[in-house]
Amino acid sequence: MGFASVTKDAFLGGKLQILQPEVGYRAGADPVLLAASVPASSGESVLELGCGVGTALLCLGARVSGLDLTGVELQADYADLARKNAEANGHVAEIVCADLRAMPLSVRDRQFHHVIANPPYYVEKRRKKSGDAGKETAFTEDAPLGLWIETAAKRLRPKGVLSVVQDVERLPELLAETREHLGSIEVLPVTGRVGRGAHRVLMRARKGGRAEFKLHAPLHLHEGRDHVKDADSYLPEIRAILRDGAALNFP
Amino acid sequence: MGFASVTKDAFLGGKLQILQPEVGYRAGADPVLLAASVPASSGESVLELGCGVGTALLCLGARVSGLDLTGVELQADYADLARKNAEANGHVAEIVCADLRAMPLSVRDRQFHHVIANPPYYVEKRRKKSGDAGKETAFTEDAPLGLWIETAAKRLRPKGVLSVVQDVERLPELLAETREHLGSIEVLPVTGRVGRGAHRVLMRARKGGRAEFKLHAPLHLHEGRDHVKDADSYLPEIRAILRDGAALNFP
Repeated sequence: MGFASVTKDAFLGGKLQILQPEVGYRAGADPVLLAASVPASSGESVLELGCGVGTALLCLGARVSGLDLTGVELQADYADLARKNAEANGHVAEIVCADLRAMPLSVRDRQFHHVIANPPYYVEKRRKKSGDAGKETAFTEDAPLGLWIETAAKRLRPKGVLSVVQDVERLPELLAETREHLGSIEVLPVTGRVGRGAHRVLMRARKGGRAEFKLHAPLHLHEGRDHVKDADSYLPEIRAILRDGAALNFP
Repeated sequence: MGFASVTKDAFLGGKLQILQPEVGYRAGADPVLLAASVPASSGESVLELGCGVGTALLCLGARVSGLDLTGVELQADYADLARKNAEANGHVAEIVCADLRAMPLSVRDRQFHHVIANPPYYVEKRRKKSGDAGKETAFTEDAPLGLWIETAAKRLRPKGVLSVVQDVERLPELLAETREHLGSIEVLPVTGRVGRGAHRVLMRARKGGRAEFKLHAPLHLHEGRDHVKDADSYLPEIRAILRDGAALNFP
């Protein structure tokens, strides 16, 4: 076990230093946007399903102090790095190495204020092999999306909130599964620029929620209608989220 | 039978004159946007499920010549007006008065290039009574949304296209049902203004389609971020659709 090579990368403008495998699933903007979108308050409990090396969980812990953080990760070498990352960044987080289908009692006995997840984006059959088994598992469908949502719903307290980031391609499946278990669903499309279609979606849903479904105006990442320079062209509010650890408030 | 009072209303800048009940379901912008969004070509066949007084079907016939138009409508008095509207506007359209669950062989024996629908927006239990039975039926859930989609899918030829307009509130249900029967789903959110959430969605799906799901940039109806005057503030491209009968092309 363990990775041949690990890098240390800065998130939130250096507020977090995250160890992650050089080859394999590597965190980009998505877990940071996910963490920024979670409406958590100090004193609440958060469970991340499929936490990888802990990027989203620790970004959330860095923004909101006093959270009770738990992460479940199937792959032992990713879970090991998540534990190291929590400790090195001064966060207390319980990282559990387990399959979603067989989580230990320490998780199954609890219900959380928040569940967050960044489930794999790609369905196995559609994808070429990357040649890296860990990346395969992190990117591709090990458990069906429905299992992620059902597991999240079970682990939420009444009125608890699920927050998910996902490839837009799987939005129909995500909504079909979520409406079976949760209510008050809201979708925030994430697009590269004004006028572009969405490439990601942030979804929020509430256990026992009865509000109408909402499809918000898209969140644009970059300035202008076209890519004009190689430099970082993030819009100021996106830069504040990615570099300064600001919250991403749903409208 | 028949309505106590009927009005004649201009659509597409007067290109169409539509008789509709003064009290009851009255067509607004939605059937016009739906018709504008249908990617139909001369010589193709179109079936509208729940055609009402024929507004969407006749808007489509007015934009694309040489279409073979069929409409199915449950309520006899609406179907009668649809027949009168087709004739008065110089269109040939077969209007069939039938329940979606029991359409005659003349419809069930055929497969169409396009099926279009503007299913009722409201679920019965959530809504106050309007005091008008015809409006109740046109607005509320007589048949579940899944029946509309399943019926549409059966009546489409291979590679045929379904076009639907719907309240955004029902998008999760719409996508859940559509992905069971059709592929290559695309959603175009319709919003009042820049920065607002969607209130309607236009959805397109293809029988046997295998393309990835797409969530397009929203279509904005009105100018500016805020309502500043009482006058018609439609954006030029929307005015072209509503007043001049222009096509609404998906991106």
